[in-house]
Formats: sequence, C-alpha cells, structure tokens
Amino acid sequence: MTSMQLFAVAGLPSIQPGDDVASLIVARLAAAGEALHPGDILVIAQKIISKAEGRLVRLADVQPSALALELSATVGKDPRVIQVVLDDSNEVLRVRRGLLVVEQRSGWVCANAGVDRSNVQADDAGEHLALLPADADASADALRARLAALTGVTPAVIINDSHGRAWRIGTVGTAIGCAGLPPIWNQRGLHDLFGYELVSSEECIADELAAAASLLMGQSDEARPVVVIRGYVPPSLPPAPARAIQRPASHDAFR
Amino acid sequence: MTSMQLFAVAGLPSIQPGDDVASLIVARLAAAGEALHPGDILVIAQKIISKAEGRLVRLADVQPSALALELSATVGKDPRVIQVVLDDSNEVLRVRRGLLVVEQRSGWVCANAGVDRSNVQADDAGEHLALLPADADASADALRARLAALTGVTPAVIINDSHGRAWRIGTVGTAIGCAGLPPIWNQRGLHDLFGYELVSSEECIADELAAAASLLMGQSDEARPVVVIRGYVPPSLPPAPARAIQRPASHDAFR
Repeated sequence: MTSMQLFAVAGLPSIQPGDDVASLIVARLAAAGEALHPGDILVIAQKIISKAEGRLVRLADVQPSALALELSATVGKDPRVIQVVLDDSNEVLRVRRGLLVVEQRSGWVCANAGVDRSNVQADDAGEHLALLPADADASADALRARLAALTGVTPAVIINDSHGRAWRIGTVGTAIGCAGLPPIWNQRGLHDLFGYELVSSEECIADELAAAASLLMGQSDEARPVVVIRGYVPPSLPPAPARAIQRPASHDAFR
Repeated sequence: MTSMQLFAVAGLPSIQPGDDVASLIVARLAAAGEALHPGDILVIAQKIISKAEGRLVRLADVQPSALALELSATVGKDPRVIQVVLDDSNEVLRVRRGLLVVEQRSGWVCANAGVDRSNVQADDAGEHLALLPADADASADALRARLAALTGVTPAVIINDSHGRAWRIGTVGTAIGCAGLPPIWNQRGLHDLFGYELVSSEECIADELAAAASLLMGQSDEARPVVVIRGYVPPSLPPAPARAIQRPASHDAFR
C-alpha cells in the first residue's frame, strides 16, 4: 500500500542565534525514542533557521527612507518594517492597503519579503524582525550535512515558509530551501493510463511536502517547527535547490 | 506525538460515467482490510469525479468559434480544445504561447479551465476531454453523504486538482471541492509564542491537505486517485465549501 507518515518533533526549545539546530533536533528525536531513518525528509520552519542564523533586525535601529515612508502610507504598516522589507528585496511588485508583495533578495515572490515579527523574542534589546535566511538552499545543505555527521543518516531537508498566493485566500507551506531532493518532478514525456502525453507535466513535490508538513506545524502557541516525513519515495531525479522552483520573471505572466 | 498518516486506496477500476465512486472506494478499502475511521479525510482526484459525472466532451463534436481560432494561433493548441475551455470559463485572464489562464465557471483561476485529456479513455466514440465538475463542492457533499450511508462513518471530503501557480514552476495539488471541513484556518486574533498578533493569519488547510494527498496520487500509469488522510485534527471552525478559498477579483492584485 502506498503510504506515508508525518510526525512533529516535540519539545524543541526556543531557538537562539548561534544554536546548533541539527543537534537540538537529534536530541529531541532521541528523547521521543525516535531516530532518523534512511529516506526521511525533514521539513523545518524558516523562522527557526533565521533565528539560529541571526537574521534579525532590531526595529529601533531602522531609519525609514522617503520611499519607505511613502509606501507606509499606502500599505498602512510601520515605515521601519517597510524599510526592512525593501532592504531585503530586489523589486516591489504590488503595493495595496495591507499588501506589499516583492521579489525577495533570494528570488522568492512573497508578501513583505517573508519578514515577520511573530515568534521572534522581544528582549531587553527591543523588538526584532526576522528576515528569510540569506540563502535557504545553503542552510538546508548545511543542516543536512550536520545531521549526517551526527547520526550517520542523511535525510533530505526542506525549509518551508507560509506564503500567500494569487487568486486564493490563505497561506500554504511553501519550500524556500531544499537539499537532497528533486524539488520538481518533471514528467514531460511520461504517458497517462491511455497513452496521452501528460499536459500538467511538472509537479512541485517540494512545495507539496512543505504544505503537508505545515499542517502539523501550527502557527501559534503550540508551534512545532520540525516535521519528519517518512515513507514518501521521491522520483529518481538528481537533487536540486529550491531556487529551481523560481519561474524566471521573463516567463511569468503574473508579475 | 502530533502525527498523521496518508495512504492511497489501491486497485480502483477505471471510472466510467455513472459509476458509484463511493461504493467503489468502500469496496477497495475492504479488499485491503481497511475501513474509514471517524476523523478521516478522503482526498479524491477531480478527474475521476468528472468522469463519474459524465463531464466529458467529444472533441469531434466541437465547432471552434472565431475567438477560439484566434486564441489557438497564440496559444498553439487545438482550437477545439480552446473552445471547450472558453465554454467552461467566465473570463480569460492571460493568453501566451503554451498558456491560457482563465477563471473557470466555478470561479477557479487556472490553466485551461482544468480541461484535460489525460486519463480520459479514448473509445470508439472518439477522443474526449474532461471538464471540472459542474459544482465540485456539491460533488464532495454528495460523496460524503453516500460514504456515510454506506459505512456509518462520515469522513471529510476534498476534491483536488493539479494547478499551476504564479511565480513558481510546477503544479501542486489544490482543493476545488470540500465537505465537512473548514478549508481556511482563520487565526486572526491568535497570538504567537511571544504574544504578537500573527501576521499570516489565514492558513488554507484544504489546499495543504490536497497537496499532501497529491504526493501519493502520481499522475501516470500508476495513478492512485483516492487518498485517505488519518490523524490530522482540523481546527474547530464551521465547515465551508472550497469556494470560500476563492479571492474575489476585486481584492486580487494579480488578475
């Protein structure tokens, strides 16, 4: 029977800059009587990677530019937050009341460049914002190597974030970093049950895995930022970074 | 431990117009020594619902209009296929080489109005295209009621389809019909670990469930069009149709 299982790694502490996330995951798995199995896929919430990597900006240190002040009036958000978004963006795509969609520096089209203040601890140094990892594919690679070194098992790793979409209400878990997995299953040339060449021939399995894991993560008090997916057999294709999912702007009809 | 399981229902026959899909699913579950459990979520590929409901158009019967011929030259597709897409659409959003994005009659923004010839049997009557169900929410409701009548267990039902997205390469499983489940988890007002009100406050769990199931479905010879999701606990919100996921055009910055 074709099947798969997902479980959240329970009891991770609040992540701080410099933390060895791989070690913490391995320790929590062991505490639950679990361990990584060959073929496991680890999905990790962007937020804890960003915090571990110190991708934090202290809001009090931000000086908004004239552009940030102008956008702030339209969007209805703190101009300092807008400045942080602009600093981590290549291009602004849409500005509306309550909406600022950009191409983030790594190439992801998303609201607010993925900048978020939820789940980032306010300490004596004042309120902080978390940016996306500088290179989430590299983060996934590093985490994968560290998990392999610690356990002898080399899982695939996906870093996910909750992204809004065109046309549809609500966010879905989406892959922004990927290691050890082909993010896209290119089925061009495959034929369906009756021999027709498949029309929808590219399936983004990394995004589907990211979405599946997101169901167990929660976004509130009970946040569970690490999920293990077991039993899913990826197609036999070479691994690639999540960056391969980005549609070039020149090919995108909805920029 | 927070966890969930997914398994595909094996051995379903090729679906024909008029088939009782619920009965076939129940029979195949029984043959595998399985049964529906309370809380199960059944995800069913749109294609078999469309076939069971006879949402088929014989290509040879289609007379393309002047508009279909004109679009055909741009898109590079059979003008009769374009005509079938237009007949099931409210509005054409984008026309490019290889791309025709519309608002389908039920309100879904998608390529080719979800019209597809893959996995639809070519018989003596000639090649057919499958349209989306006329009302996939109603289809999900009916299937749910029929499953309840047959088994005494009332699962949630999602009808999914593979949709392309703006900005990202590859399709992902997406909900177009929903019964017995809140498709959107509105978390507005909830607070995160440190008391901030959550920014990304609406999560489309129906789409995440649809994507998760899609991983087991495959798109080729081994198609597995029915997947059971077990162990996922939806938020305590009133059920709603998948139509609730549609962002009104007036609120959409990417039309």
